[in-house]
Amino acid sequence: MKKIVSLESGNGGLEMAQFLNSFTNKLYRGNNENGKNLWSNFSNDSATYKLPNKDILCFTTDSYTVSPYIFPGGNIGDLAVSGTINDLAVMGCEPIGLSLSLIIEEGFELDELNIILDTINRIANEFKVPIVTGDTKVVEKGSVDKIIINTSGVGIAKKILCDKILPGDKIILSGGIAEHGVALLSKRFDFETNIVTDSKPVLLEMREIRDKIKFAKDPTRGGIASILNEIADEYSLKIVIDEEKIPIKKEVKTATKLLGIDPYSLANEGRILIICDSKNAQSVLKDLKKFNTMAEIIGEVEKLDKVGNVILKTTLGSRLLSMPSGKIVPRIC
Amino acid sequence: MKKIVSLESGNGGLEMAQFLNSFTNKLYRGNNENGKNLWSNFSNDSATYKLPNKDILCFTTDSYTVSPYIFPGGNIGDLAVSGTINDLAVMGCEPIGLSLSLIIEEGFELDELNIILDTINRIANEFKVPIVTGDTKVVEKGSVDKIIINTSGVGIAKKILCDKILPGDKIILSGGIAEHGVALLSKRFDFETNIVTDSKPVLLEMREIRDKIKFAKDPTRGGIASILNEIADEYSLKIVIDEEKIPIKKEVKTATKLLGIDPYSLANEGRILIICDSKNAQSVLKDLKKFNTMAEIIGEVEKLDKVGNVILKTTLGSRLLSMPSGKIVPRIC
Repeated sequence: MKKIVSLESGNGGLEMAQFLNSFTNKLYRGNNENGKNLWSNFSNDSATYKLPNKDILCFTTDSYTVSPYIFPGGNIGDLAVSGTINDLAVMGCEPIGLSLSLIIEEGFELDELNIILDTINRIANEFKVPIVTGDTKVVEKGSVDKIIINTSGVGIAKKILCDKILPGDKIILSGGIAEHGVALLSKRFDFETNIVTDSKPVLLEMREIRDKIKFAKDPTRGGIASILNEIADEYSLKIVIDEEKIPIKKEVKTATKLLGIDPYSLANEGRILIICDSKNAQSVLKDLKKFNTMAEIIGEVEKLDKVGNVILKTTLGSRLLSMPSGKIVPRIC
Repeated sequence: MKKIVSLESGNGGLEMAQFLNSFTNKLYRGNNENGKNLWSNFSNDSATYKLPNKDILCFTTDSYTVSPYIFPGGNIGDLAVSGTINDLAVMGCEPIGLSLSLIIEEGFELDELNIILDTINRIANEFKVPIVTGDTKVVEKGSVDKIIINTSGVGIAKKILCDKILPGDKIILSGGIAEHGVALLSKRFDFETNIVTDSKPVLLEMREIRDKIKFAKDPTRGGIASILNEIADEYSLKIVIDEEKIPIKKEVKTATKLLGIDPYSLANEGRILIICDSKNAQSVLKDLKKFNTMAEIIGEVEKLDKVGNVILKTTLGSRLLSMPSGKIVPRIC
């Protein structure tokens, strides 16, 4: 039997991680002889390159396909521009430019294309991150489901976020979780909710806090469950989260309960999960609350023990928060 | 009636140019107040950015969709890596890194995926252009036709190609034309030919000649007809091509005659069209012949007159070589 690519590979969960590992490990990453490779951070949100003047160039890419592509509070254009700006911003760098590559199905409505392009342009303009190069392919009907957008991005940093995460460090969320996920599901399953996507660049927040933190990441596909597990795995640490502290809007809680979906596995598109030294935590929280009053310190890094990597302290005791896996996570981005 | 995106927009011809213009003109390109925008060359193969140390950063993107995705002499992986390296190389810069974003249809055969990834890796390795960042999306069956690849790229130059093109300058082709186009069509229409794709990075050639030339471009979609018209338009010049000098393999000529297709409008994926001062033409030709003995000086730049922008001198007299338009060009990339 021929082996095929299965959809579970793409859900932001365990299979995806295995699938990605199997081939990214093969890729040519540059010449490491004599340790002179100027590139590093291959598995991070952005790869980084040491420029001749010691500045650091950050480079990232993401392709966006989402159904529905116009949803409560936004559209695929929001995700594409904000997502790529965020992949640069969470490294601690200033985005300097984006590329925009559109793959459009023949027959796509020009009115909708204009809504998407206007969104892209509005965000680029508002955050002063220019779109400097691009490419458009129109493909035959049936060759692509409506529209796919790839945005790559470059940025420059004096210093990227790379301080060692240690037991005692605090974990902070910049706002309520799972709003993007619920907004998308509400359109897809046609239920009513006031929740709109949280999609937006987190650049302004990152500018305020980047000198005071050790680590930042936007919890997109797989939600905070995915990211917390990734961090715990990569740094061999235990993470303990206080469930009551996790910021979540009432409507989001209700909707996810009704749907029987774990909000911790749902995507966010304008939130940051931050790790910082405990002495900076209150100051970082204060900065973040200027942008979103729901920002909260949600937990702490501890030494690894046998209990498990990510622990959720609930009112009923403690449980493991595991990596989302398989089709448990509805595929929405 | 609702206006829709039509396939002709994507053929590399006239409609595509109009379609692209209408929306790229809207895009935020950076703050031009005080003339301080560090970005330029927005409509070139790569956009360019002045780095703090005066080096120039080049940035480009391209999405690749091709049917068939495995064809005589290569596959979509060849196109994706070579194409993006070439978009950087023709600016006169050294590519420093690529991004790789895969969008794969559920059910895609892993064996074929491995062929494509091996190709990508082999070329990256051979030309020492590392793949530093990436993204993979697996989408539901029917959401994409097999596979789409986006490769973006960054490069650094001390100086990019920007000397003014003037009457008297020579036009040079680095090898036989339309081989990629014919290889693809042979697979699609199932006819026998020895022709294989010309897809490859033109980086080695560019390194040899970039200090002696004014302009280089890889004639991909729309072939040399498209590029020559673009140059003539952009610089308000007339271009006169000697048809007998255009390098074309006998089998390519035969195949295009049989199919009733203009080889000048067919895609090349490993050729460069070069413009240089006439005093450098022989030296550049000599350099190019080291890589491909079919390299040839094919024409000359002249002052604009009323006759038309691109003139093809044939054995029967002269004719206009016009911009490919509509479905005359079979869509193959």
